[in-house]
Amino acid sequence: MKIAVLGAGAMGALYGGYLSRGNDVLLVDVRQEQVDQINAQGLKIHEPDGTTTLCHPAAAIDTSAMGPVDLVIVFVKAMFSRAAIAGNRSLIGPDTYLMTLQNGSGHEDTLMEFVDREHVIIGTTQHNCAVVGTGEVRHGGSGKTCIGCLTGDVSRLQPIADAFTACGLDAVCDGEVLRLIWGKMMTNVSASVLTGALQVPLGYIAENASAWALCERLVREAVAVAGGEGLLFDAKEEIAKVRAVCERSPQGITSICADIAAGRKTEVDTISGSVVRASRRNGIPAPTHEAMVHMIHAMEGRAAK
Amino acid sequence: MKIAVLGAGAMGALYGGYLSRGNDVLLVDVRQEQVDQINAQGLKIHEPDGTTTLCHPAAAIDTSAMGPVDLVIVFVKAMFSRAAIAGNRSLIGPDTYLMTLQNGSGHEDTLMEFVDREHVIIGTTQHNCAVVGTGEVRHGGSGKTCIGCLTGDVSRLQPIADAFTACGLDAVCDGEVLRLIWGKMMTNVSASVLTGALQVPLGYIAENASAWALCERLVREAVAVAGGEGLLFDAKEEIAKVRAVCERSPQGITSICADIAAGRKTEVDTISGSVVRASRRNGIPAPTHEAMVHMIHAMEGRAAK
Repeated sequence: MKIAVLGAGAMGALYGGYLSRGNDVLLVDVRQEQVDQINAQGLKIHEPDGTTTLCHPAAAIDTSAMGPVDLVIVFVKAMFSRAAIAGNRSLIGPDTYLMTLQNGSGHEDTLMEFVDREHVIIGTTQHNCAVVGTGEVRHGGSGKTCIGCLTGDVSRLQPIADAFTACGLDAVCDGEVLRLIWGKMMTNVSASVLTGALQVPLGYIAENASAWALCERLVREAVAVAGGEGLLFDAKEEIAKVRAVCERSPQGITSICADIAAGRKTEVDTISGSVVRASRRNGIPAPTHEAMVHMIHAMEGRAAK
Repeated sequence: MKIAVLGAGAMGALYGGYLSRGNDVLLVDVRQEQVDQINAQGLKIHEPDGTTTLCHPAAAIDTSAMGPVDLVIVFVKAMFSRAAIAGNRSLIGPDTYLMTLQNGSGHEDTLMEFVDREHVIIGTTQHNCAVVGTGEVRHGGSGKTCIGCLTGDVSRLQPIADAFTACGLDAVCDGEVLRLIWGKMMTNVSASVLTGALQVPLGYIAENASAWALCERLVREAVAVAGGEGLLFDAKEEIAKVRAVCERSPQGITSICADIAAGRKTEVDTISGSVVRASRRNGIPAPTHEAMVHMIHAMEGRAAK
């Protein structure tokens, strides 16, 4: 397959690198240094077991002279998705699949601005990865990649899942991928966003009664909104899962917490914001998520002062 | 009149000091040093015009051997109201009026645990005052004191208002005192509480679009809840007033902001919390106020870690 990955950050590099073992992969990034390093020296992936995988995908900034590929995977930060896809339109032809494995939900709305509903692939990944240097990432942990479609029979995506699995990215097709996405989102839109607002590690959310009351409320609202989307969750179960995440990594610093501390823009619009958009779409209220989106943006602005 | 003031902090000292010019005033406080200083040296009030007023109210910690007075004014921090009144019950007889001029609303619920509805006086003050040392306060600005009752004709409080005015505390009786209290509260429950949550000066609330969106939402919810209490406000007018306060004191640091920064407990339960309690009483939702109460408490806990 011809595959283009938009964004050679941690996750883009990981997927691009792995997939290059059995496919013709192009990593697209806006940073000249990153592109040059990958083209000249390859991409180094430090594995959890201490070994290093060296991969040789191609890398480029400007794709305007290139033709359509079979699959484009969007791995930029969600607020840059639209700009990244628009800037690389030449890679998208009538048969190109456009895939998102980004955190949060609702990315399909952006993808459908560029391809028809049939060619959108949404999914989740359990891999995690961090940048350690130019052309160099640390693979923190592995897991399943679940992909699915918005319409039609998911089995038509099996060749793509097989291609991923053949390259060491264990992938499955899932007919209920939207439910998986929302399930994965429950922790992000509750405990994670609160660690940002309160500037605390994950454990604090479970330890402090007021933080936990707010966290529970966020889960309950998200479960109700998901229900309005036809995705049924049990609030008690989801609350217990979120609590377990907090208790398992009490010192864990989320990316939203780190972003605020560093004065960076956060991904809150694609996390809590996607609950708010679904809430407006289906009429199930999500006032606490709306408040959190405003809070986080107000904190971003403060940092920039 | 025999008057006891519970709490010889900034406002208690100011009112106790002024009222001692024409009445038999007892200042009650838990701090031995403050009590001794007032009894030995009097109370120094540094006036806005640069002069200093020296007053000689009596001061005491233990009032258990004393009898009922005509008026008890509660000026402790609201979270200590119940304990302060309970600890000085001997001052309250069947004819004693119990008065609160504290920030926030709903203090009458606590007062009615100790006197009947007819003997509760609620009100607002436009004075502001800060502690500068033991037995020494700085009077920041003057204004009207408005008092009213929960039941019956407010004119029966005229002798009390006259006694205040005679001592230099310009006071009036107001038949719509609850509306005044809620009106005064609009800024506290919106812009002020947000300066605490965001740790910013007042001006930032009007400058930052997300902070302001949240502020507007808090005013709208409070106006709706007040409506449920039979107190009609125009949301647009109240929003304009709150904006004017932010713009008039852009560098202003609120007490809730300072309390959080210093790791102290805040008065959020009597500010935003009183909107939440009214909301539960009258069934008008106030989800953003509920979220703010949790946020502020979670921040208090964090500071205490």
